[in-house]
Amino acid sequence: MNQFAAEHLQALSERLLVAAGAGADEARLVAAELIETSLLGLDSHGLIRVPQYARQIGEGVIRPKVEPETIKQTGNTLIVDGHNGFGIITARYMTQQVTALAKHGNLAAAASQRTHHVGRLGSYVQQLAREGLFGFAVANSSRQGHYVTPWGATRGRLGTNPLAYGCPTGDEPIVLDMSTSAIAEGAIRAAKQRGDGVPEGFVLDPEGRPTTDPNDFYRDDWGAIRPFGGPQGYKGFGLSLLVELLGSTLAGVAVTPEGETDPYINGFFILAIDPEAFCGRARFVELVDELVDYIRSSPPEAEGVGVVLPGERDWATRKRRAAAGIPVAAGTWREIVDAAAAVGVSEAELERIAHGTAT
Amino acid sequence: MNQFAAEHLQALSERLLVAAGAGADEARLVAAELIETSLLGLDSHGLIRVPQYARQIGEGVIRPKVEPETIKQTGNTLIVDGHNGFGIITARYMTQQVTALAKHGNLAAAASQRTHHVGRLGSYVQQLAREGLFGFAVANSSRQGHYVTPWGATRGRLGTNPLAYGCPTGDEPIVLDMSTSAIAEGAIRAAKQRGDGVPEGFVLDPEGRPTTDPNDFYRDDWGAIRPFGGPQGYKGFGLSLLVELLGSTLAGVAVTPEGETDPYINGFFILAIDPEAFCGRARFVELVDELVDYIRSSPPEAEGVGVVLPGERDWATRKRRAAAGIPVAAGTWREIVDAAAAVGVSEAELERIAHGTAT
Repeated sequence: MNQFAAEHLQALSERLLVAAGAGADEARLVAAELIETSLLGLDSHGLIRVPQYARQIGEGVIRPKVEPETIKQTGNTLIVDGHNGFGIITARYMTQQVTALAKHGNLAAAASQRTHHVGRLGSYVQQLAREGLFGFAVANSSRQGHYVTPWGATRGRLGTNPLAYGCPTGDEPIVLDMSTSAIAEGAIRAAKQRGDGVPEGFVLDPEGRPTTDPNDFYRDDWGAIRPFGGPQGYKGFGLSLLVELLGSTLAGVAVTPEGETDPYINGFFILAIDPEAFCGRARFVELVDELVDYIRSSPPEAEGVGVVLPGERDWATRKRRAAAGIPVAAGTWREIVDAAAAVGVSEAELERIAHGTAT
Repeated sequence: MNQFAAEHLQALSERLLVAAGAGADEARLVAAELIETSLLGLDSHGLIRVPQYARQIGEGVIRPKVEPETIKQTGNTLIVDGHNGFGIITARYMTQQVTALAKHGNLAAAASQRTHHVGRLGSYVQQLAREGLFGFAVANSSRQGHYVTPWGATRGRLGTNPLAYGCPTGDEPIVLDMSTSAIAEGAIRAAKQRGDGVPEGFVLDPEGRPTTDPNDFYRDDWGAIRPFGGPQGYKGFGLSLLVELLGSTLAGVAVTPEGETDPYINGFFILAIDPEAFCGRARFVELVDELVDYIRSSPPEAEGVGVVLPGERDWATRKRRAAAGIPVAAGTWREIVDAAAAVGVSEAELERIAHGTAT
């Protein structure tokens, strides 16, 4: 597997997105978000999305060069129409808006319509945390992504529905970014490609029977994924429903009628709380650090590494990859080359950019 | 097991709490909250708490006849000092405050200090939902209740840390009220009393080894409970930490130093969102109902009952118990009789009240 410097992958991503039709500014911001995600080690939401977005511009799924628009606003809330532009641009705009509103008015929240894939959900609550705010966000999926069952039922009615929160500390922020499903569809696909099974209780076949064979999931009109929580999957279901209610319903987005294609991918909701209105920002960070020390003092399990705070592993990966480069799998490179060829960018040029030898 | 009418158990609870030192008004409100919880079938947070609270007044843990006090306020946030009165009274006051603030200003949140046991967490978000608001609440525990481990570690650093949300619908509200731990301490105790095991992976012994024997949990200085989520217990841990940060830290409450007894039991946080600021209250309920219909359309698992929405089982139990009475276990009756005797109320009088033959 080749490793490339983040700055070169940034340049490569911009080149491809602009060639596909994106504006220079939005290409720079989207690329920066995706490459940052790859630096953090979250490859499923990183560089791999660049060729996907490039293709989706071609297909008319992502509309480049549109601006997110606030269509309803109060002193501390907004609904934003993403106009099917880059979801990352819409979510970034919403995050900036709630940051300003929360700093002025303690609490602020934004919900979205027609938002494309927002990428790494944790990124937005992390941005709030870096501003000293406590952030909470969710992202639901349109009907096409409804693989996840309500607890006790057999057909998908929900997306993997991640939720995230971010909290400032004296060091890097705490960032939890978790799906509310037992497994991601991508992980089932990876197991299938490796010839492995999936853990028991995670996946149902198209007839609604539990299975550990990933091939069963892809039969006929596909199977389904259970909510996370094991024997307490009703908790995962309840949280998934929370994501749905805040991520879509609150913004006034209805369930898409059967057979229709949704005009969006994610529904995004973000909430900011300014600790200044409570115990004060500085005191809050002090107390968070004390709490973290107390939690870390719990001894590790046998042969374990002990307490790992939400997001902590990502910061470690970021340090490694910033120094050694970002590994790019052969399959990902192939996808980039194919997407680039479709918009007139040669593999030779990509190679030059990735190796930093472009003039 | 005897069954008693809710109104008679209400009268009995008021009698006992007043005899223990509570004011008439607070006794009525606390009793109403606990009996309503028993009606919903959530016995661990219902009538069984009446003798507990009566004893705790005697021990000076609960201070009767104090009022919750807002010690910091902005236009949409508050910190409330419960002054170690009934947690139910503090939480009720905070819920009323955020209801008024959110209806006026779209979003509102309250955090607490020195709050005693708040009872059923779902009750407060349900109150918000009945007002047409979306509610989110958490309750953490003081150090005495820290049985739950951070993921990957072996000693308790967190409480069972429940979180709850409530959402208005065209029918009864959706109310999720879930702990973020794999099992409650009370459930381990019940298994021990029955001579049963506990499910694999839920409990650690005092040396940090997984065990299914509840007796191992109670050895020496006690074992620990893992966060919920099975193999994805890092999610349960992350959510438990969320509860801690919002429930205690935001209000300015520090981790209690080792060996000291906390002056409180729960840290309570509640947030209200007015859908009027987003798609509008009426439209929101319409869309929630459509979403619920869509989710219910997922076929049940083999031999299952199909989709059960968060809180739905409780409404069914409430209907049954409102008609047939609330079952009271012999052990619970015994505890009530003992607590009553300690404050000069005879079993004969309790019997008369419970059977509705008191004059």
